[in-house]
Amino acid sequence: MLVDQRFEGVLVPVVTPFAPDLSPDAGRFLALCQALIADGADGLAIFGTTSEANSIGAVERMALLEMLLENGVPARLLMPGVGATAMDDVVRLMRHAAQLGCGGALLLPPFYYKGVSDDGLFDFVAAVLSRTEGSKLDVYLYHIPPVAQVGFSPDLVGRLIDAFPDRIVGLKDSSGDFTNTRTLIERFPGFRVFSGSEVFLLDTLRAGGAGCITATGSVNITGIRQIYSQWRSDSAVELQQRAAAIRSIIQSYPVIPALKAIIANSTGDPAWRTVRPPLQPLDEAQSNALINELKAAHFQPSSGVIAMGRKAEAAAG
Amino acid sequence: MLVDQRFEGVLVPVVTPFAPDLSPDAGRFLALCQALIADGADGLAIFGTTSEANSIGAVERMALLEMLLENGVPARLLMPGVGATAMDDVVRLMRHAAQLGCGGALLLPPFYYKGVSDDGLFDFVAAVLSRTEGSKLDVYLYHIPPVAQVGFSPDLVGRLIDAFPDRIVGLKDSSGDFTNTRTLIERFPGFRVFSGSEVFLLDTLRAGGAGCITATGSVNITGIRQIYSQWRSDSAVELQQRAAAIRSIIQSYPVIPALKAIIANSTGDPAWRTVRPPLQPLDEAQSNALINELKAAHFQPSSGVIAMGRKAEAAAG
Repeated sequence: MLVDQRFEGVLVPVVTPFAPDLSPDAGRFLALCQALIADGADGLAIFGTTSEANSIGAVERMALLEMLLENGVPARLLMPGVGATAMDDVVRLMRHAAQLGCGGALLLPPFYYKGVSDDGLFDFVAAVLSRTEGSKLDVYLYHIPPVAQVGFSPDLVGRLIDAFPDRIVGLKDSSGDFTNTRTLIERFPGFRVFSGSEVFLLDTLRAGGAGCITATGSVNITGIRQIYSQWRSDSAVELQQRAAAIRSIIQSYPVIPALKAIIANSTGDPAWRTVRPPLQPLDEAQSNALINELKAAHFQPSSGVIAMGRKAEAAAG
Repeated sequence: MLVDQRFEGVLVPVVTPFAPDLSPDAGRFLALCQALIADGADGLAIFGTTSEANSIGAVERMALLEMLLENGVPARLLMPGVGATAMDDVVRLMRHAAQLGCGGALLLPPFYYKGVSDDGLFDFVAAVLSRTEGSKLDVYLYHIPPVAQVGFSPDLVGRLIDAFPDRIVGLKDSSGDFTNTRTLIERFPGFRVFSGSEVFLLDTLRAGGAGCITATGSVNITGIRQIYSQWRSDSAVELQQRAAAIRSIIQSYPVIPALKAIIANSTGDPAWRTVRPPLQPLDEAQSNALINELKAAHFQPSSGVIAMGRKAEAAAG
């Protein structure tokens, strides 16, 4: 659901399928994006960490984005990741997203050098914003220190909001630390704070946050979206516990290969298992164990994912 | 000095100058590369960590490389960094370096995802090598865990040498751990192991290594090159101690801004101070303190660097 044209609710950093030669698989990517929208995703944060975006160069990312729009995916539902270590790459991706009318963009800090100062990170964001002026592209900061190592501290977020109030409109907090999420929500009213995990979705909404942008959305958008739509109801806590339990199973495996294994299993389409190196697919035993654990927990992927498999079968048959 | 057309000796990961608008400054870059060759560098490992290469996108890196060759810098002396997190970017940079006849290329592991397996890293290298087959470009692995967090373990290096003996010919070890360097040299005879710091140059040569590829080469190539040319002589230890003392002073500041401050001071050209965010230039006080410490240690940058300043003055006058 969009209010004042800015994102809120549950967004999915869609996993990116690859062909056997490791090139991006446009057809399967489009099918999954369409399925997730049909299943109620409030937006698609394509090219996030779960999407293996940093394993996909700018040229390939831009081609995939254009392909989605050419096939009718609404640009306003897209929040592509524009992260890269080089400002010229980020500027290129941001201009492209802006020209295509995307609903926003998700911006990683530059993540090669470690231990950099807030001043340096501020200058980086200022540099890319000054080179994309007039674009009116909403920028969401992407805070994921467990992977990027470099992050946006609350003080830095405050400086960026003060300096660029019309451009820096929100943040995805994948710190895994809800105290940090709460701090951001309380310190910056009107700023759209998304948790990076559905485990904190109810807490985030109760604190006044905007929603979540979560990896597991690629397979469980329905279950997670229910928390959002019913968060003021009596069933909210149970829905939250249920989603957290499913995530906990998935997270006990390498998450990105696990999500792909689940989609491969649900659709009967093993092509979904492919990841780009340095990631590795789950092996057969891991994959079977994961599927069995999810079965025991009575989990079924969202209907759109399953329907993808039926459509592929029909096309093949 | 080149033996069997492969690098050995002292290579410099040349610092990259930027214009006030932060675009790469081709003129100053060319001048510094020429100065370093004139001062005896055995090769230029342009686009390394010290070069801020991961702050420079593939398009800009390729343009700088072409510019050097158009201006007479010999391709066989160049070992450009081809590191990136996405295999398609790496492949593009490697093909470009190969087409231009570069003496080699320095390959980072993919550094976005942390805690990845040796199998995943092996597959990444295999994927980029299989897409650049027939290029005959010598590939040197770039092990710099303090920055990249992800690295090439000795076991992984062994697997890569076994699988690609004609392609994977050496490694730059910037672990800061000479035990690791020694292990690599002893385990893989004929493999060209370079220390990432001149502090270990004498030890590396005595152990049978190929030399060093070192940040401080941008200002002290003469002092470091002397260790290499005289390493079997009585003066080697003193030369080594002298170079280590200079490095120690520089390393007590953020190294990349410090190297640029030294060049700015020696040439009288403040444009050299510019770094790309997220790095920050030294402030006036830091810069003065650094210059004074080096003066007290009777350090003068290599003559080519100083000559760059005189040439710029003559052109201006």
